[in-house]
Amino acid sequence: MENKIIQPKPLSGYVEWLPEIRAVELAWLDTIRRVFESYGFANIETPSVEEIRVLAAKGEDADKEIYALRRLNAEEGADESRVALHFDLTVPLARYVAQHYNDLTFPFKRYQIQRVWRGERPQEGRFREFYQCDIDVIDNEKVSLSFDAELPLVMADVVSRLGMGRAVTRISNRKIMEGFYAGLGLGDIPAAIRVIDKLDKIGRDGVARTLSDALHLDGSTIDRILAFATIIAPDRAVLDQVRALGVTNDLMEQGLDELGFVMEGLSHLPPGEVVADLSIARGFDYYTGTVYEGKFLDYPNFPTIYAGGRYENLVGSYLRRALPGVGVSFGLTRIFSKLVKEGVITPGARSPSQILVAHPPEVSRAQVLETARILRERGLKVETYHEPKKLDNQIKYATRKGIRYLWFPPADPTAGHVVKDLNSGSQAAADPAGWLP
Amino acid sequence: MENKIIQPKPLSGYVEWLPEIRAVELAWLDTIRRVFESYGFANIETPSVEEIRVLAAKGEDADKEIYALRRLNAEEGADESRVALHFDLTVPLARYVAQHYNDLTFPFKRYQIQRVWRGERPQEGRFREFYQCDIDVIDNEKVSLSFDAELPLVMADVVSRLGMGRAVTRISNRKIMEGFYAGLGLGDIPAAIRVIDKLDKIGRDGVARTLSDALHLDGSTIDRILAFATIIAPDRAVLDQVRALGVTNDLMEQGLDELGFVMEGLSHLPPGEVVADLSIARGFDYYTGTVYEGKFLDYPNFPTIYAGGRYENLVGSYLRRALPGVGVSFGLTRIFSKLVKEGVITPGARSPSQILVAHPPEVSRAQVLETARILRERGLKVETYHEPKKLDNQIKYATRKGIRYLWFPPADPTAGHVVKDLNSGSQAAADPAGWLP
Repeated sequence: MENKIIQPKPLSGYVEWLPEIRAVELAWLDTIRRVFESYGFANIETPSVEEIRVLAAKGEDADKEIYALRRLNAEEGADESRVALHFDLTVPLARYVAQHYNDLTFPFKRYQIQRVWRGERPQEGRFREFYQCDIDVIDNEKVSLSFDAELPLVMADVVSRLGMGRAVTRISNRKIMEGFYAGLGLGDIPAAIRVIDKLDKIGRDGVARTLSDALHLDGSTIDRILAFATIIAPDRAVLDQVRALGVTNDLMEQGLDELGFVMEGLSHLPPGEVVADLSIARGFDYYTGTVYEGKFLDYPNFPTIYAGGRYENLVGSYLRRALPGVGVSFGLTRIFSKLVKEGVITPGARSPSQILVAHPPEVSRAQVLETARILRERGLKVETYHEPKKLDNQIKYATRKGIRYLWFPPADPTAGHVVKDLNSGSQAAADPAGWLP
Repeated sequence: MENKIIQPKPLSGYVEWLPEIRAVELAWLDTIRRVFESYGFANIETPSVEEIRVLAAKGEDADKEIYALRRLNAEEGADESRVALHFDLTVPLARYVAQHYNDLTFPFKRYQIQRVWRGERPQEGRFREFYQCDIDVIDNEKVSLSFDAELPLVMADVVSRLGMGRAVTRISNRKIMEGFYAGLGLGDIPAAIRVIDKLDKIGRDGVARTLSDALHLDGSTIDRILAFATIIAPDRAVLDQVRALGVTNDLMEQGLDELGFVMEGLSHLPPGEVVADLSIARGFDYYTGTVYEGKFLDYPNFPTIYAGGRYENLVGSYLRRALPGVGVSFGLTRIFSKLVKEGVITPGARSPSQILVAHPPEVSRAQVLETARILRERGLKVETYHEPKKLDNQIKYATRKGIRYLWFPPADPTAGHVVKDLNSGSQAAADPAGWLP
């Protein structure tokens, strides 16, 4: 071993928590998973890497953000350059379904909670490695619309069980937009959708200007587009508002039927938790029906916490078969980091232990260990102090680690045990075989 | 989207499970974590990557196996080439402790369950991406020996709670070996240890030949080395067996004291679960005291399931401070894959759901959803069938997904519910607000 000191530096774009914050993140991950499973989503986990040709098949410019692997000392052109870290969990899902098609039962409801990697320039709220928590339902030929109405329920449940209050899911349907724009006679509809999608960021005037400058649309068309894109309604009333704009189109009507069904299926949610909002388009080219975006109701300035939608040809690049799906992705790292930074999330304990079994100098190690064993056998989380030392040190250790109970085994095995609650300072006789915190 | 089909191929060296096997792996991960926490180990998670200079500081030839990252479309020499995927969890722990030293409470007991990556040639039991489950205790200046005696208890507990029967931990101490060999007058002790470490693989004769050919040792020295390396004892008796070989050395005596303390601390374990075995050396250069290897007692032909030991200068490369530690790593993926392959692990259910709430054609969707909500509210895992279809289809779906109970909500909300146990075929009236599986 050399004696040269290499001072490690935090890596920008990567997060790392102290144990007391990680304990909270772990509780979040458990909650998310428990809620997903409570709706019947089964877990899968895919390798961190995919073949580059599989990742690239998604089209788009995603390859700019891809991290490829190479062996540090490999010869040029060695086969590892075939693989790269996945940048989302949707492409891996598509590849998984294509590859294991014959072994899966459809509708296939899966959740996946994994880290993904993107070679982005690090900045506030952008990470190079981050957790995504995805639920998707995939089926043959056709996915029931009832799943479009189920996913916002699952996410609302997640947010509330995380103790983050209520979420609002804003819902639209790509068919309505595309049909409406087609009915208006627009030429480049995807370009128009991309502009509208910036309404939140550049405002009405910005959108109007861009539609006029870049797409050469006339004032009346722009007015109708803006009227359409700013429709917000708490329920099926959205259908009448769209129709009142006087555009007729079959695809639009189909989208309105679908949106109506979804809004109906969510009508039991408390007011404010779901709104039809026709400005929602979602950037991804593969959404073809329902689209969602979720935000905290109590933290309106927070970015989107979950988003997703319906796609008609998820595995189309990998399998000659139509396998449509609908899914939502919860952006854990982004949200969690921001909540930590803003002080909304406060640290948990530094140790998972509920009890520290003390080792008073007059007690044998065997007695300490046996006491811990009995308590642990009963499902309690128990540390033993590692050496017979002055009790001051042991109390200080428990306090620093956030361990609430200090347990004193007796020097004489036939004598009684004592437990001290470090929160209240109170102290009482206790039986390790029966005591409860 | 193109119409070209890209047929994905399984990547060699990477594992991926169907949902019914993943469910078992997830249960394993939960059990391992629960046991680690029950002994007071706190979780941390580090980024998947470290700076290459941090990984390389470990010395050795580890860099051959390192996967560096590069952005697929990055210019030559862009800064991403600074980082690489970690190949174990020990280097990240060392870096973490060095970096967060002032924010941690010592002794620092941490567990870490993450994937690691190695650019190895894939072969039976070797993976390029695999889970490691590590526990380590790090302290200032000196780590109490009581932790050396605790770690095998934790691992024995893990194995038994995984339902894999009993484990045997074979224990030795590097000081005994090094002292013994020094006392024998050997020149290149590390070389001799590396040869002895192959006893399992190349046998007594192979070791004797190598010691003679490569290290030019005489027959009587080789005899004493072999007598030493084949000492196996269930308890402190190991001390007398070593001393009987007639070598005197201070370091050896110190090692014997330590081994005696550890064996004493584990003396309450059932016979066979712990043995002192002086052939155990562990290849890594950084072990300096206790070393362990764990195997299944019931599957003796299985490879090592966990291994570890004590190191005196974990963070020495990153911090001017002596921070010794002791740790063990459980090789989850390797063991789990082999157990699946051998048919020891059998698939779980394809869905986490306990109940499928059926959607009979005469029942409203609202009634189906409300029934599921009540059941879910009580902590049950509940799927709803997604459309009003013939009950045959719904029963088939539940059976295929391994969902045990089929729940029938009534068409008339004031009428009673019925639940059918698909295992027994029996059926009974039930109240969603009170029913238990």
